[in-house]
Parts: sequence; C-alpha cells; structure tokens
Amino acid sequence: MASDVRTIGILLFDDVEELDAVGPWEVLAAWTTYFPDDGWRVTTMSRHGSQVRAAKGLGLVAAHGADDCPPLAVVIHPGGQGTRAQVKDEAHLDWVRQRASEAELMTSVCTGSLVYAAAGLLRDRPATTHWGSLEHLAKLDPSIEVRPDDRWVDDGDVITSAGVSAGIDMALHLVARLASPARSAEVRHIIQYDPAPPH
Amino acid sequence: MASDVRTIGILLFDDVEELDAVGPWEVLAAWTTYFPDDGWRVTTMSRHGSQVRAAKGLGLVAAHGADDCPPLAVVIHPGGQGTRAQVKDEAHLDWVRQRASEAELMTSVCTGSLVYAAAGLLRDRPATTHWGSLEHLAKLDPSIEVRPDDRWVDDGDVITSAGVSAGIDMALHLVARLASPARSAEVRHIIQYDPAPPH
Repeated sequence: MASDVRTIGILLFDDVEELDAVGPWEVLAAWTTYFPDDGWRVTTMSRHGSQVRAAKGLGLVAAHGADDCPPLAVVIHPGGQGTRAQVKDEAHLDWVRQRASEAELMTSVCTGSLVYAAAGLLRDRPATTHWGSLEHLAKLDPSIEVRPDDRWVDDGDVITSAGVSAGIDMALHLVARLASPARSAEVRHIIQYDPAPPH
Repeated sequence: MASDVRTIGILLFDDVEELDAVGPWEVLAAWTTYFPDDGWRVTTMSRHGSQVRAAKGLGLVAAHGADDCPPLAVVIHPGGQGTRAQVKDEAHLDWVRQRASEAELMTSVCTGSLVYAAAGLLRDRPATTHWGSLEHLAKLDPSIEVRPDDRWVDDGDVITSAGVSAGIDMALHLVARLASPARSAEVRHIIQYDPAPPH
C-alpha cells in the first residue's frame, strides 16, 4: 500500500487561525490513522518548516517546509489574519499557483479563499469564506459567484468553506468524497461530532 | 482591568488529542481577544513548558510550565491517548488535586475525565467522557453517575464533556457561564459555529 499513499497537506503560517487548521487536521488524522488502507495520509507544512505563531497565540509546529514537503494530492489552505499579508505576497501566490498545477484538489477554510482568489484560482467559480469577508472575496475577484449561505462549496478541483469551524464539516465532506460517505460517518463518530452548542 | 483578569489554563501533554485542546482554545481565545473587558484570559501549559507531540502527531507549544503558570481560576484537562499513562501517574494526579484545591472550576474534555476520576475529583458526582471510555470511567470510580447521553455535565465546580469535538460546545457553555449566554452566542458567531456535517 505504502507506495500508493496520497498526501493531504495543511498549510501552517504565522497568524493562521488555530481551528481553521486543527479542525480539518483532527478529522483527517483520525481518518488516516484508523483507516490506513484507504491510502491517504495527512501532514503539515510551513514556509520554512518551522514553528508558527497562530492568530490567537498558540504555537504550532509544521512537519515540513513548504518547498520540501512530499507531492500533495490535496492542499488545505486555512484562513486567519495571516491571509491579509498573503493576498499581496507574490511569492506566496506563486507557491499556491504551483501547488494548484500539481494537486488534484485545492481546498480552503475561512479566509483561505481570499488567497485563492488573489492567486486567480477562483475565476468564474462559486466560492465562499467567513461571513465577515464575503465582500472582500467579491472585491478580490468580481467574477466569483459568492455563496454566503453555504457551509462549503465543492466546485470539482477547488473546495472553499465558510468561517473557522466550517473546516471540520468540509473535512468530513473530503473524507466522504475521497473514501465514502460511510467512512465519513465513521470518522464523525470517532471524534464524537454531534454538535450541541448551548442556546 | 489588568489586575483583576482571571486565567483559564489548558493543559497540553504528549498524546493529547489535538481537537480536545484546540477546540476550547479557539472558543476561549476568540472570546478573550474580542472581549477583553470581560476580565478573562486563556493560556496553555505543559509539564515542562515545552513543545508536546499531540496524539495524531501535531506539535503544540505551551506558553508555560505546569508549575510556573499563573494562578488558574479555571483548568481545562483535554483527553487523548496520553491519559492512559496519566491515570497511573501519581505526580500528575497530585498536580491535578493541587490545582483543584486552588481553582474555581475544573473542566475536562473527552478522556480528561478519566484523569479527574483517578484523582478522586468525581467521587459521587455525575460525569461523562468519550463514548468509547464510558465503562473505563465507571470502573475507575464506581461512585460516579456516568451520563452517556450528555454533551457536557456541569456539576458546579467540575464540568466534564463528551469526546473530542464536545470540547467546543463545553467551552461555549463556559463563556455563557463566566460571561453571559449572549456573549457565548457572539463568540459562536465569530467562529461561525453553525455545524452542518455531511450526511
């Protein structure tokens, strides 16, 4: 099996929103740990492969550098305050475009879609983002059909999702798509994701 | 305000389940960042104040050592495979008991409640844990009234919650209790927590 294993990479960066990254990580790591025969693994990368300081101050340690990670079949770009700089960072946008040319699937959480918009990945596509950034998304690329009410938008080789916690739902959708809906339900059960927020 | 700020501490340890810790972190850090006048802050600690390797392999960096963190009004003990060792680690159980004697409120996520049970904190109390550890919880202390169907159990100065993602809901309950239900609703909106897992 080992030689056929495909890799999902979650990008970490300074001022990445913690749950944007760790929500999908938990879903995908639970999946790939308990069901290795599905043929997927998940890893993390940051620009220099080093520790990042996330948006709320938590230190997260990436497994790889952005340019020395394994070939990625699926990329997850979280959001957070750090995306404010990334949308103007041509080197980062080039990295995103390069990854998009190689990956099967580019996905984002929250304001990660702003970076995809700035990189030109969302041209003439439906997409979403955090509720507070919907206008920013439309402004970055007026050709985007912004979907304010969707938890995630699956447009084939690009998936964008709504704010922060929506990454958990999007990742469960990824499991359903890459493995099966039954597998996604199993992973959901493992992380006991039967949300019941207080009223 | 600064002198009156009370601190919530989330314990990090090797083999802590990632979302057990980072779910509550996100909720509480969003709250304390956007509403500093509520008078609370949230921080993290690990045994030696160093990086831990979480259960699924992500590196998390604590802000403090377990014995040199600020006085904690609220403790959050996440779960994960690391709790298997902690329930037999007298030094850790002593640390938990010491913190319990000083804190207003001891809370746990997932199998964190096994550690509380082993430390004697749950004697004659209602409590819950991950669905896969309900029997283990009852075995550690048969005086516990195990509640398999509750998302979290608030027993006054101890709150336990169900598995992994339940920590998010428990943390929103904490905001409701320590600030107000309206504030909890605001935080929920900020992290766009309107869960819609795929079917």
